[in-house]
Amino acid sequence: MLKINSERLWHTLMDLAKIGATEKGGVRRLTLSDEDRRGRDQFVAWCRQAGLAVEVDGIGNIFGRRAGTDADALPVAVGSHLDSQPSGGKFDGAYGVMAGLEIVRALNDAGVKTRAPLEVVSWTNEEGSRFVPTLMGSGVYAGVFSLDKILEEKDVDGISVREALNQTGYAGKAKPHKLGAYFEAHIEQGPVLEQTKTTIGVVQGALGQRWFDVAITGQDSHAGPTPMETRKDALLAASRLVLEVNRIGTGFPDYARGTVGFMQVKPNSRNVVPGEVQMTVDLRNAKDGTLSAMTSELKKKILEIEKETRTAIAAREVVYFPPSEFTPDLVASVREGSKAFGYTHRDMVSGAAHDAVYMARIAPTAMVFVPCEGGISHNEIENARAEDLAAGCNVLLHAVLARAGTA
Amino acid sequence: MLKINSERLWHTLMDLAKIGATEKGGVRRLTLSDEDRRGRDQFVAWCRQAGLAVEVDGIGNIFGRRAGTDADALPVAVGSHLDSQPSGGKFDGAYGVMAGLEIVRALNDAGVKTRAPLEVVSWTNEEGSRFVPTLMGSGVYAGVFSLDKILEEKDVDGISVREALNQTGYAGKAKPHKLGAYFEAHIEQGPVLEQTKTTIGVVQGALGQRWFDVAITGQDSHAGPTPMETRKDALLAASRLVLEVNRIGTGFPDYARGTVGFMQVKPNSRNVVPGEVQMTVDLRNAKDGTLSAMTSELKKKILEIEKETRTAIAAREVVYFPPSEFTPDLVASVREGSKAFGYTHRDMVSGAAHDAVYMARIAPTAMVFVPCEGGISHNEIENARAEDLAAGCNVLLHAVLARAGTA
Repeated sequence: MLKINSERLWHTLMDLAKIGATEKGGVRRLTLSDEDRRGRDQFVAWCRQAGLAVEVDGIGNIFGRRAGTDADALPVAVGSHLDSQPSGGKFDGAYGVMAGLEIVRALNDAGVKTRAPLEVVSWTNEEGSRFVPTLMGSGVYAGVFSLDKILEEKDVDGISVREALNQTGYAGKAKPHKLGAYFEAHIEQGPVLEQTKTTIGVVQGALGQRWFDVAITGQDSHAGPTPMETRKDALLAASRLVLEVNRIGTGFPDYARGTVGFMQVKPNSRNVVPGEVQMTVDLRNAKDGTLSAMTSELKKKILEIEKETRTAIAAREVVYFPPSEFTPDLVASVREGSKAFGYTHRDMVSGAAHDAVYMARIAPTAMVFVPCEGGISHNEIENARAEDLAAGCNVLLHAVLARAGTA
Repeated sequence: MLKINSERLWHTLMDLAKIGATEKGGVRRLTLSDEDRRGRDQFVAWCRQAGLAVEVDGIGNIFGRRAGTDADALPVAVGSHLDSQPSGGKFDGAYGVMAGLEIVRALNDAGVKTRAPLEVVSWTNEEGSRFVPTLMGSGVYAGVFSLDKILEEKDVDGISVREALNQTGYAGKAKPHKLGAYFEAHIEQGPVLEQTKTTIGVVQGALGQRWFDVAITGQDSHAGPTPMETRKDALLAASRLVLEVNRIGTGFPDYARGTVGFMQVKPNSRNVVPGEVQMTVDLRNAKDGTLSAMTSELKKKILEIEKETRTAIAAREVVYFPPSEFTPDLVASVREGSKAFGYTHRDMVSGAAHDAVYMARIAPTAMVFVPCEGGISHNEIENARAEDLAAGCNVLLHAVLARAGTA
């Protein structure tokens, strides 16, 4: 069975990580910064060395194309992103792009031609650290965002995406084209694979997200003279809501998650009953129906807590991001690839968004997860093992070949 | 039955409130500021006009003495404080001192001599806004604090209490003397009297206080990729603790109170499970044994929450202030005075500390509470009704006469 070159994949990742390397072993390649430009230039050079035809589109997405034997077949794409968080790691995004490159190199070495063309893709600005929104390049490609509008987005220094693309030489002219399939390999960015000693995550889809801003209004009062039964304690209401959000996260099926990550208390003085709390609620689920049911439960609980605590609670939905379901036969080919290579594997969902989430709207899509150390990412200490990265790439190779066909 | 002059009491309070008056109708007389000096000078002038012999002690406490007919009888003192919060009200403290002055004036008008001498007292720095600790003057008088140490305490500009006393001319030489009784009238600073439409609060004592700093350590993790069951959510632990503190406050007898007034969450980002929370716990009770039982319950719950949430919780006690019980026969005379005048009244405790709390350690002590608007104090909008203030002063007069005896 055809395998990728594990050492070459690792060394390519390490060479790429030298561009924008940070002292603590991470990388800083903010979108369309000079470091990102150098990372892109390196990727393009490697694509050309591997015989790929390189194209760049209007938002700076890079496509390295390897011809297939069937001129009419839609290309099978493999990709992710090269930009990083301000203090990012060596693997988030970079792994998916380099895995695509390694597949092409391995096919070249073995002299294997595919029926459908292959494309290795680098999407612009997945992270959203310098420019918002996140998932910018794949979002424009999938028609979620208007290119013209996105080009006017500015960073904190007032530099627009358009200007940054021109400065780096990545304002391309290629038009979006139809894809036969899209595959993305990524570190998990969570603890499940490591904790369950599993090599391959067979990703079923990505969780939908509903985000809320919640403002609770009670009444400030002195902690001493105010009897318990007359208080309007906004922090008591907030705390009950935290528990309910947790219950919603643990009580619903379909990979439910409920998180309160932010809370601000006023006046925040130890001997004053708090009169005001600002907080957030983040609900996630793999199924839109269940996500709606979680939201209804949240609203019901808010009404109960209002009454019980004599406070007023205003909840405003600020983000709705529907769940993505990946394409069953592509997901199956990832599972079969894992079995064929004898890797431990498990079905799972992506809790976070990836470029694959937008691609799933316009093409058959699947993802492969590999473990990362301690589940940590978006951090310079982000780490992954060479053998896991190679395993993910082998599974990807298997799935790509199953989809593209061999000549 | 002898009564005080309601209008005179009100106008005296309003005249005093002109000194350090703020735009919004409050006062700003920070301890030993020029405004406080002018307030003290005015009080001393009124004392002398009423025929009182004025003495000042080493911490600047002012005593206006009216002779009794029995030279051996210990004096019966009535007082409170003239200093205010930075944005304080017209009644907090000032009422208790002016009520003492009004009692003397009313006795003068009626030509009543008491067996025991009477003293009207103004304690230095009750509020603790410019210099710490709070209850400074009564604390030194009661031997809680060492005078020499307290004189070296500095404000934010580096000016010591000693310097401020010298600057204002209130570094006196009088030595502490034994008191036969101490009475203090005060606005309630809470909502109970107003809400129950009661004129007089017969104060049984002041709640003891135990304050804790609590640090909760969990583990930051991404809200999406981290399943509920593997989280170490510091905010979930903190919220459970808030609920337990509330249960302790509502579940124990003897005027129990439990408050979390302060909470700080880290990293405080909407899609990150919080890894760290700093918070406070404030437990109060009228009985020391019950306060200890509340503390034991808190510690037990902390251990349970640690286990359930997989976090580490460190609680450190930072303040212990034992409950004060006022003197039963003095408290009874306040109750009887209320009955005699036909005022609605109820037994209650002081949730906050007052000079009376330290005086109770060295002399028979009682307090009289009157309603304040909305239970609000430490605020320029602090307000009280002339008839309630007069009622409290009448009750005080009754109790003082009962203790001092008439000639």
